[in-house]
Amino acid sequence: MTTPRNPGELELLMRSGIPMARAMGLRVADFDGGRLALVAPLAPNVNDKGCAFGGSIAGLLTLAQWGLVNLKLGEAGLDAEVYVADTSLRFLAPVWGELHAEAYVEGDPWPDFLVSVATIGKARIEVYGEIVGEDGGAPAARQLARFVAITRRAVEPD
Amino acid sequence: MTTPRNPGELELLMRSGIPMARAMGLRVADFDGGRLALVAPLAPNVNDKGCAFGGSIAGLLTLAQWGLVNLKLGEAGLDAEVYVADTSLRFLAPVWGELHAEAYVEGDPWPDFLVSVATIGKARIEVYGEIVGEDGGAPAARQLARFVAITRRAVEPD
Repeated sequence: MTTPRNPGELELLMRSGIPMARAMGLRVADFDGGRLALVAPLAPNVNDKGCAFGGSIAGLLTLAQWGLVNLKLGEAGLDAEVYVADTSLRFLAPVWGELHAEAYVEGDPWPDFLVSVATIGKARIEVYGEIVGEDGGAPAARQLARFVAITRRAVEPD
Repeated sequence: MTTPRNPGELELLMRSGIPMARAMGLRVADFDGGRLALVAPLAPNVNDKGCAFGGSIAGLLTLAQWGLVNLKLGEAGLDAEVYVADTSLRFLAPVWGELHAEAYVEGDPWPDFLVSVATIGKARIEVYGEIVGEDGGAPAARQLARFVAITRRAVEPD
């Protein structure tokens, strides 16, 4: 598997490689070069109270953040595996409809991150994520996640 | 929906009320009054790298922790809704087989927690969770989660 170079390749990678992403009904909604937005319908992601299941919120946010790191690597022509190291998630309000997740970074850490991956084969990055609140108001959930990217080793020929 | 009073009722509540719990293939493995253990097979929870998807790890841990709080309430004859407030999750090692999650508390916060729910109708509690490591060694993931329990209002008769 190689690093996806555009939102269509990312969606295909997530839906074909991660059964739970498919079960969640996840789609890439938008990527403007800085923010990645994913959506998922409520029905497969509902809990016993009729609102969005916390595990789906965690999964969707982590996939949005992981996806953003992959797209920035792919745009730069780099092929690296991206691992999540840790997450801190606050649930702020229930979600009663479609889930909208957005991932973004603060400042511009991408040049340093991409140069490190390209030169020493490894780098870390912090990515923020939010579940958009009802009627576009305050977020329904916020997550900070840290990722490690490691260049894929060239496969030795037989 | 009322608070589950035993592991069988909890498994039924999770699998019937939360489609993603069913999609994950989650089962209650054990409850000894203090620790709740859940298991899920790798196949539906795999990622693009062939090990467990971080979103499944987050979901399984949160369900184990949420389930433990529900069982302690149910054992005490209390009927309350349990909400996750926040989680901090560290991914420590990949999981290449069945996922085993365990939830537990530190010390004995249950008496204070249960008395608060019974008397003022609301209480908070911290619950720890671990994904058991390969060959039972160091954990593959650790999560601290905080929950709020709120007594269900009595339904007014017609």
